[in-house]
Amino acid sequence: MDLNSLLERLKNGDIEVEEASKQIRLGNIHTLSEISNIDPYRMKRTGIPEAIFSEGKNPDDLANIAMEHLKHEGRAILTRVSDEQLTVLEQKHKVEWNKYAGIAILRADGFQVDKTGGAIGIITAGTVDVPVAEEARIIAQEMGVTVHTIYDVGAAGIHRLFPPLGDIIEKGVDAIVVAAGREGTLPTIVSGIVDVPVIGLPVSSGYGAGGGGTAALHTMLQSCSVLSVVNIDAGFVAGAFAARIANVVAEARCKE
Amino acid sequence: MDLNSLLERLKNGDIEVEEASKQIRLGNIHTLSEISNIDPYRMKRTGIPEAIFSEGKNPDDLANIAMEHLKHEGRAILTRVSDEQLTVLEQKHKVEWNKYAGIAILRADGFQVDKTGGAIGIITAGTVDVPVAEEARIIAQEMGVTVHTIYDVGAAGIHRLFPPLGDIIEKGVDAIVVAAGREGTLPTIVSGIVDVPVIGLPVSSGYGAGGGGTAALHTMLQSCSVLSVVNIDAGFVAGAFAARIANVVAEARCKE
Amino acid sequence: MDLNSLLERLKNGDIEVEEASKQIRLGNIHTLSEISNIDPYRMKRTGIPEAIFSEGKNPDDLANIAMEHLKHEGRAILTRVSDEQLTVLEQKHKVEWNKYAGIAILRADGFQVDKTGGAIGIITAGTVDVPVAEEARIIAQEMGVTVHTIYDVGAAGIHRLFPPLGDIIEKGVDAIVVAAGREGTLPTIVSGIVDVPVIGLPVSSGYGAGGGGTAALHTMLQSCSVLSVVNIDAGFVAGAFAARIANVVAEARCKE
Amino acid sequence: MDLNSLLERLKNGDIEVEEASKQIRLGNIHTLSEISNIDPYRMKRTGIPEAIFSEGKNPDDLANIAMEHLKHEGRAILTRVSDEQLTVLEQKHKVEWNKYAGIAILRADGFQVDKTGGAIGIITAGTVDVPVAEEARIIAQEMGVTVHTIYDVGAAGIHRLFPPLGDIIEKGVDAIVVAAGREGTLPTIVSGIVDVPVIGLPVSSGYGAGGGGTAALHTMLQSCSVLSVVNIDAGFVAGAFAARIANVVAEARCKE
Amino acid sequence: MDLNSLLERLKNGDIEVEEASKQIRLGNIHTLSEISNIDPYRMKRTGIPEAIFSEGKNPDDLANIAMEHLKHEGRAILTRVSDEQLTVLEQKHKVEWNKYAGIAILRADGFQVDKTGGAIGIITAGTVDVPVAEEARIIAQEMGVTVHTIYDVGAAGIHRLFPPLGDIIEKGVDAIVVAAGREGTLPTIVSGIVDVPVIGLPVSSGYGAGGGGTAALHTMLQSCSVLSVVNIDAGFVAGAFAARIANVVAEARCKE
Amino acid sequence: MDLNSLLERLKNGDIEVEEASKQIRLGNIHTLSEISNIDPYRMKRTGIPEAIFSEGKNPDDLANIAMEHLKHEGRAILTRVSDEQLTVLEQKHKVEWNKYAGIAILRADGFQVDKTGGAIGIITAGTVDVPVAEEARIIAQEMGVTVHTIYDVGAAGIHRLFPPLGDIIEKGVDAIVVAAGREGTLPTIVSGIVDVPVIGLPVSSGYGAGGGGTAALHTMLQSCSVLSVVNIDAGFVAGAFAARIANVVAEARCKE
Amino acid sequence: MDLNSLLERLKNGDIEVEEASKQIRLGNIHTLSEISNIDPYRMKRTGIPEAIFSEGKNPDDLANIAMEHLKHEGRAILTRVSDEQLTVLEQKHKVEWNKYAGIAILRADGFQVDKTGGAIGIITAGTVDVPVAEEARIIAQEMGVTVHTIYDVGAAGIHRLFPPLGDIIEKGVDAIVVAAGREGTLPTIVSGIVDVPVIGLPVSSGYGAGGGGTAALHTMLQSCSVLSVVNIDAGFVAGAFAARIANVVAEARCKE
Amino acid sequence: MDLNSLLERLKNGDIEVEEASKQIRLGNIHTLSEISNIDPYRMKRTGIPEAIFSEGKNPDDLANIAMEHLKHEGRAILTRVSDEQLTVLEQKHKVEWNKYAGIAILRADGFQVDKTGGAIGIITAGTVDVPVAEEARIIAQEMGVTVHTIYDVGAAGIHRLFPPLGDIIEKGVDAIVVAAGREGTLPTIVSGIVDVPVIGLPVSSGYGAGGGGTAALHTMLQSCSVLSVVNIDAGFVAGAFAARIANVVAEARCKE
Repeated sequence: MDLNSLLERLKNGDIEVEEASKQIRLGNIHTLSEISNIDPYRMKRTGIPEAIFSEGKNPDDLANIAMEHLKHEGRAILTRVSDEQLTVLEQKHKVEWNKYAGIAILRADGFQVDKTGGAIGIITAGTVDVPVAEEARIIAQEMGVTVHTIYDVGAAGIHRLFPPLGDIIEKGVDAIVVAAGREGTLPTIVSGIVDVPVIGLPVSSGYGAGGGGTAALHTMLQSCSVLSVVNIDAGFVAGAFAARIANVVAEARCKE
Repeated sequence: MDLNSLLERLKNGDIEVEEASKQIRLGNIHTLSEISNIDPYRMKRTGIPEAIFSEGKNPDDLANIAMEHLKHEGRAILTRVSDEQLTVLEQKHKVEWNKYAGIAILRADGFQVDKTGGAIGIITAGTVDVPVAEEARIIAQEMGVTVHTIYDVGAAGIHRLFPPLGDIIEKGVDAIVVAAGREGTLPTIVSGIVDVPVIGLPVSSGYGAGGGGTAALHTMLQSCSVLSVVNIDAGFVAGAFAARIANVVAEARCKE
Repeated sequence: MDLNSLLERLKNGDIEVEEASKQIRLGNIHTLSEISNIDPYRMKRTGIPEAIFSEGKNPDDLANIAMEHLKHEGRAILTRVSDEQLTVLEQKHKVEWNKYAGIAILRADGFQVDKTGGAIGIITAGTVDVPVAEEARIIAQEMGVTVHTIYDVGAAGIHRLFPPLGDIIEKGVDAIVVAAGREGTLPTIVSGIVDVPVIGLPVSSGYGAGGGGTAALHTMLQSCSVLSVVNIDAGFVAGAFAARIANVVAEARCKE
Repeated sequence: MDLNSLLERLKNGDIEVEEASKQIRLGNIHTLSEISNIDPYRMKRTGIPEAIFSEGKNPDDLANIAMEHLKHEGRAILTRVSDEQLTVLEQKHKVEWNKYAGIAILRADGFQVDKTGGAIGIITAGTVDVPVAEEARIIAQEMGVTVHTIYDVGAAGIHRLFPPLGDIIEKGVDAIVVAAGREGTLPTIVSGIVDVPVIGLPVSSGYGAGGGGTAALHTMLQSCSVLSVVNIDAGFVAGAFAARIANVVAEARCKE
Repeated sequence: MDLNSLLERLKNGDIEVEEASKQIRLGNIHTLSEISNIDPYRMKRTGIPEAIFSEGKNPDDLANIAMEHLKHEGRAILTRVSDEQLTVLEQKHKVEWNKYAGIAILRADGFQVDKTGGAIGIITAGTVDVPVAEEARIIAQEMGVTVHTIYDVGAAGIHRLFPPLGDIIEKGVDAIVVAAGREGTLPTIVSGIVDVPVIGLPVSSGYGAGGGGTAALHTMLQSCSVLSVVNIDAGFVAGAFAARIANVVAEARCKE
Repeated sequence: MDLNSLLERLKNGDIEVEEASKQIRLGNIHTLSEISNIDPYRMKRTGIPEAIFSEGKNPDDLANIAMEHLKHEGRAILTRVSDEQLTVLEQKHKVEWNKYAGIAILRADGFQVDKTGGAIGIITAGTVDVPVAEEARIIAQEMGVTVHTIYDVGAAGIHRLFPPLGDIIEKGVDAIVVAAGREGTLPTIVSGIVDVPVIGLPVSSGYGAGGGGTAALHTMLQSCSVLSVVNIDAGFVAGAFAARIANVVAEARCKE
Repeated sequence: MDLNSLLERLKNGDIEVEEASKQIRLGNIHTLSEISNIDPYRMKRTGIPEAIFSEGKNPDDLANIAMEHLKHEGRAILTRVSDEQLTVLEQKHKVEWNKYAGIAILRADGFQVDKTGGAIGIITAGTVDVPVAEEARIIAQEMGVTVHTIYDVGAAGIHRLFPPLGDIIEKGVDAIVVAAGREGTLPTIVSGIVDVPVIGLPVSSGYGAGGGGTAALHTMLQSCSVLSVVNIDAGFVAGAFAARIANVVAEARCKE
Repeated sequence: MDLNSLLERLKNGDIEVEEASKQIRLGNIHTLSEISNIDPYRMKRTGIPEAIFSEGKNPDDLANIAMEHLKHEGRAILTRVSDEQLTVLEQKHKVEWNKYAGIAILRADGFQVDKTGGAIGIITAGTVDVPVAEEARIIAQEMGVTVHTIYDVGAAGIHRLFPPLGDIIEKGVDAIVVAAGREGTLPTIVSGIVDVPVIGLPVSSGYGAGGGGTAALHTMLQSCSVLSVVNIDAGFVAGAFAARIANVVAEARCKE
């Protein structure tokens, strides 16, 4: 950013005021643009792979975008994939398909996720929360994290939670995602018992006042236990956030 | 409601169409008005004494209204009474004053609430819920019901609930009011354990999204346990509703 | 919960601090987990049978869940069942089907609901409220309660309510559920006349501002009469709550 | 609007295109501005006097505005007047003051409202609704209409409404304003009984969900009876609207 | 309502306290029930015919309900009728069908609406508002009122309103309904010009913030002109309310 | 507006008071109606062509409206056109079709948009924002403005924005529209860098709390940079507003 | 951003992988930080001076911040200044004070705003809108723009707008800000008449449903005319945005 | 939980059915109550000290509660303390007072927070965010974590963020809390650059639509970067959550 020399040239009469003014205004933009060179390092930098949100995309366009990701990153992760989109994708490349989460993954030959040593738990109150929880699980695993799941604890019978929760605590987890809809109280309960960070994941179940995940979101935001939350149905964010914690812990551990 | 004779008179030419038409339209109103004669029996009929909502009333006006209640019903119950209003009331008559609930009660000589034999429990999550809970307690007691209270269970330490809850279950309660603000999960927990009806009473604590009692109300409406709820801070309604249940139970019991 | 001996062992050098710390943290969870042993007694404890929410479940999965309930509890209650789900269910077992409420019930041979002696009333403002009211009726009957219904009172002609209401009051009811959509004023009116507890059940009818049951819910929460309410369209909760009251009353009565 | 001659002049070269373009664009505005000449006839045209909303105005400024109104129209109507504003007004001119409604009226010597022959009724559910109702009453009277009021019917004892309602129906009213807060059901009931137009006036009472007049507004909008409504606390609009109806009726009547 | 003799009988020992208590509680209900006898006079009383809301009703059930109305009232008005419902209706009886409003009317032989002499205007901002406006027009005509319509004024070209508005003012209207969606400003403009009551009818057009009729409703409630409003898309209510005004005016006129 | 002569005639007894009163009330409307004569100049006046909102219109009706526009204005612009509507349109006239924006344009022979010399930029955060951006682009071009687009900057990789933004700044733009959904931060960033007016265009993407464009709209309204905004998905308005700025600039420029 | 040499050094063994990884991650941040050097040019770059939001700041802290601005930029603009803050400011430096807008400006000796040649109009519906309009006026003038104001047009008498609007159009304005509260229709009307960009500025007046500026904001967003809007009471943004347009126009004009 | 022996005793006739039934229902509660014994270990278990929310508490009551905490835990942390409360507290014990956050801490002699080795960063967009950020800082430090703060980055000059952010990344932080009000975009930007978990902390600044922290909360929930969030102004929760992460990382690190 050669501001001084620019001003020198102006002073010396090499350029006009108008030109100098324009250069100054553009300078900011050009400097910022230099940053784009380091973009390929983005995943390393933030630790989170990019995913393609498929909803509403034309199947052929989607397949093209996926193939481009595959080429540049060795892997393409597609969320909210429809049956029609899946069919087109499968004609282009081998697809790992998770029907509950609606996630398709394409991998280049030899692409492989290295285990980082981090581990998280994912707990759901009911079966209706499983698709969102699966979205969290897959992204975390793609970030090299081991995932222990406890699905369908049963909202009205909270005691069923304790034996499997004891198990995963013993195995060791660095963070826990707890998905819950309707009144969304499960994250509060888990956070009051364990000593690792708990991320509340509200799910869009429930009808009437506070339905569609709103009561669950607000309950988690108002929780007397210490929780952080993500948006309603944002399984991807919850999984990636928990995995980021786990990877920071694992990196500390690796230095032994 | 002499409709037929009215029509006869019309047919016989004793009255004009215009007059008959007017009589028919007024008839409905006159019939309804006859009902007002039974008003003094209202408390008996619905089992719930009338209370005077004091907020915003001129102290002198309020005192006059209170004295009139006192004269006709032997008792005046005033809610949300200010210090200034209280001072004026005390100049007129002896006042029973509950400073937490802001409730003043005036009684005629010899007025006495007979125990009905019904009993309820009132539980609060925190100390901030006590004023609203006290409002519930007082109205229930004025309906002849015995009230057992468990205040300040401690939202983050739910286990402190169980010993006193065991105690009041053993003593016997016909319904339980559970007051809670912020995320409002305590009623759900209580309802999952006991086998009497539980009434959720959301309290206007908590700030931010879902604050002011909204998250608590929605949590209770979305609860996986079976609950019914009243409006935010509606301690009077919760207490009266629980007492009504208790009195129905007691009345059944009395027939032994 | 052998905390003291654990600490003794630590003091005596039998275990390390790390192990002791882990045991203490896990102890809480293990103690809680013991409670799960008493789960089969849950219905006895809270008086309310569990129901299976069918919406969005795969028909085969749903049928399997239903058969398991049937095996363990002698009965399976399924709410919001679709035609497709019904067809699959009927291939597995005899189904009692209520098309208005969309509720299917499967019973083991010899399973029978014993009358508790409790009774409730269910009233609807219009025909649009009937499905939700039927949901309330069925769950109450499955709890052993006798149900008297008054459907389609006619919102604009409130006087049509009184003769049948007089009838069911004479027969004797321990609680009344009143379902209403749009402006939702019927529960207030009923509660002002009778002396048993009235539960307001808002129904998701009405369009425009306050539509979808919101005005009805708010009207009931703001009611000048003493009411408690359940969420919009929560017929199951309303029925179960009223039945719980009726059963508490009946139990008192049985002790004669 | 001399568009053609303008274009002629353009064609003849008397003016340039730029000037013509500007004239055309301005022409619309100038034509519209001619209308301002008939402004003094506005009250006659719409039948409703202008009022000065006093809230937040500097007392001296307010007094000046009031005196100007007084001079041009023979009367100044000021709503939501504070004590401090009132004091300043009274130093300038004789004031008719209604403390409940917070309305001050100044009249020129000899100014007098002629009775139009129209009549309306104004009904309130409780005492808290009176200030808003008084606002409606005063504006209607200033429009020459006779007003019959029924204040404090008592929300929980609807039967007390009928005798006075019968009275004012017999006296003859052309429209009825019904003010109600909290659940706001009174307008529905009145509208179901009478055969003149009923205007619902929601009042900002009630706390919790649906509080501040929201439940009342929505109840009136959702009403099964035929009602039209005004905004929360808009007593002025309700009174003026009802009076406009009454004056249209009275004008029809005058032609006899 | 023989309360005194009831109490006499109690005093004389002819009946027991329990029986007297029961009679008193039932008395209120029985008295109210007598009112139902005058129900056939309801349309006369309130001036508004009952309509059948068809949405979601089974075609055969709907047809049966319609035939019953036809039998008792000589006419059945059905709103929001689907094509499938229409087909079934037409097999039962001759149907007058308005496809814009989705309203079907069945009439008994010789049934005829007598002109009352009242007249209203109905104005819409755009073509999208026409279905709701037609609903208003039809109900008003069924109440005997003459309706003048001005459809599709063009929201951005308000001046197109004035010639036809002048026409209908000259013809004479007793009230005007103005339907408008999006920002909903047309009723304000009309109300500022004419001297008959104007009823704002918000229409559920517009997307984004304030869409679905919300901005229109709020604009009308906040209007600086004097308006009353009905709910979003409530064409039936707007038409009936305006017609009620017109009929009150016409009745005044008839007395000449 | 011959008010004075009207009053003279009244004074002279040529007309009655009733007639004069009616004339005065009608006068305002007649004067306003004269304005409609200048309507054909509307586009000139406000600089923005009228578009036909096609959603929900019958295809044949729509085609007729389009042909009428074509005849009077030489061009018809139709937004939100469905496939079915398009087919019918194409049978009537040659159609320019933009499938992303759903806009159809019909032009008379020889109709041609003259370049005004104005230029704007349109930037989108993601591909999901393109349809709305295209709507903005087309209307701006129809107003004679040159449009430079930067689509799919990539919300999480803001640095990709800078090189193309530098390019269009160098080419010269008079205003920039920035479309963004979800959290909607891109307009803030652009506005902080450039020195031409930036219009925020929120897009209805995103689910959960703040979804459907709400968070984007609020973010833009709360922006610390200086922005103005249009409604969610209002591409037409954003494009027309930016073009209006560009044309004002261009007109200033033309005077050189 | 010396990425390649960094990698070379890694390959040559001059640094370890850990160090290289850290450098790459930090590199992005360091590159971005270089931009801060051009910050002093910010006002030039975006054309808008920074203002200090004073609300809630300690008077002494505020005065210190103001003096620092004064030193670096030759001017300090403070918005929402309280009386107490003003007193402290005046002890430090000469203050230009606008009591309506609550804006204080401090200027260094010799600081002077050069007229850019741009001009805008600011129009308000009522007197209550003046403080917000003044905020817009002051910031625009500080940006070198000439401002023509039309205050208090009178919401219910729109015709009073036209003569002064004609005047300012003749004087020439490059953009118009229109401030309006309650139903907020004035910007729509102005935008339909003039051919320069119109910015809607909603004002937080009005109570009840749609009060506090909400109805005004939504009306402007839903407007059928072409408008862009700013947030409720955001006079600063509206003025700065309009001035930015005017300055872009003026800059084009200067090139003659 | 001696269920089997209980049933044996029932079978052997040692107890009656009624007694057994009561024991089974109470059993659940008694078992749960045993858990309360381990409460003193709670802080160890969840890693987060309890704080006393002081708002609205009587100063003397508050002081008593504080002294009790002090006695049992060696420390009392009080949030949202008023000046009056502070005065009373200082009479009882030495107080560490943070006036920005309104937090008071009392410590027993010799009480000392051991550094865990964890570290976090806290960043604010503006000075208005500092009180909430300080709340986060204090709680984190009380949990043994080192805190690096970057306050007042300047919302409109994001580049000022980069140098200090580079500094704290170099020092090493395990998590970063980013506090921001109004449009709340800063957490998204930070999260896109760093590779440790970022917690968004919305602050209740901003007025108009999306004001009071709502836009900030929604922006963070909708963020394209991976973030988790806490409620508006919930500095305590954000600090405790970040510290919990840091302590989990530190614990991993300690095992080296």
